[in-house]
Amino acid sequence: MQGLTLIFTGNGKGKTTSALGLAFRALGHDLPVAIIQFIKGSWKYGELASAKRFDILDFHVLGKGFTWKSDNLDEDIQIARKAWEFAKQTILAGQHKLVILDELTYLITYKMVAEAEILAVIAKKPQDMHLVITGRGATEGLIDCADLVTEMQEIKHPYRNGIKAQKGIEF
Amino acid sequence: MQGLTLIFTGNGKGKTTSALGLAFRALGHDLPVAIIQFIKGSWKYGELASAKRFDILDFHVLGKGFTWKSDNLDEDIQIARKAWEFAKQTILAGQHKLVILDELTYLITYKMVAEAEILAVIAKKPQDMHLVITGRGATEGLIDCADLVTEMQEIKHPYRNGIKAQKGIEF
Repeated sequence: MQGLTLIFTGNGKGKTTSALGLAFRALGHDLPVAIIQFIKGSWKYGELASAKRFDILDFHVLGKGFTWKSDNLDEDIQIARKAWEFAKQTILAGQHKLVILDELTYLITYKMVAEAEILAVIAKKPQDMHLVITGRGATEGLIDCADLVTEMQEIKHPYRNGIKAQKGIEF
Repeated sequence: MQGLTLIFTGNGKGKTTSALGLAFRALGHDLPVAIIQFIKGSWKYGELASAKRFDILDFHVLGKGFTWKSDNLDEDIQIARKAWEFAKQTILAGQHKLVILDELTYLITYKMVAEAEILAVIAKKPQDMHLVITGRGATEGLIDCADLVTEMQEIKHPYRNGIKAQKGIEF
């Protein structure tokens, strides 16, 4: 098996949901999966409840709230760095066949972790491990190192028409 | 609950995978889900194995092989129409809270089912049912009637670099 690096980026819906779909696909093959969530709240009740049915799925919520914006930038950076260190160890440990780094791109965008540092770890990932990175604004360096990149483009969104988030779809 | 109509279209990866992710999200809420697959083989072993863990998931494989191209066009149209009739009944019966019409767009593209006929059924779907349509080349009529449309754009694909399909990712 040749491990691939996949990126789901862009402003449209479906980035995290695609990663979730891949997780269930891999779990169906009994491949151990780790999901590391860099933004607290980006995975919701529905998938967490489904995830509990699989004991070979390790789920880690490490980030802060959605914006990563607070009054204490030093604290934010510390939390982000700690989350990244955990991801790095998970990747290099090689215990999983699929590692999902959900919303990782924000750590680079907000300059909390240097792109070069992340690229160095991706370059050292076990040969048989798939890596999935999600988040808006994937940087050129990330795209260069990936095998597959899909940009989700928002064409139409219900919030524009004043429709509220719906159970089973948005959460 | 207000049921939404979602479309995942475009040439990139992640359309069916996003639908799969939504299915598991809804299943986590104990919402009954129906998946109707209009192209045989677009859902693979991994997700089928995961799907078996949920007894409130109805999975129907109704279509033909990937291209829908055969020597017998009449037979193809018959199979496509039968599949659509089943989907129509499933939607109007209202037993599910999420119905996924995987690769439905091809039926319109190949002129096997008229767009107007499909739009009429979507307009009559139960108010509390979410509908997800996937497939390349979603038509303008479909996009008009949807609440949320995401276009998956392929930026980079491993097959271009000669990498074979990988277990847990592609199937």
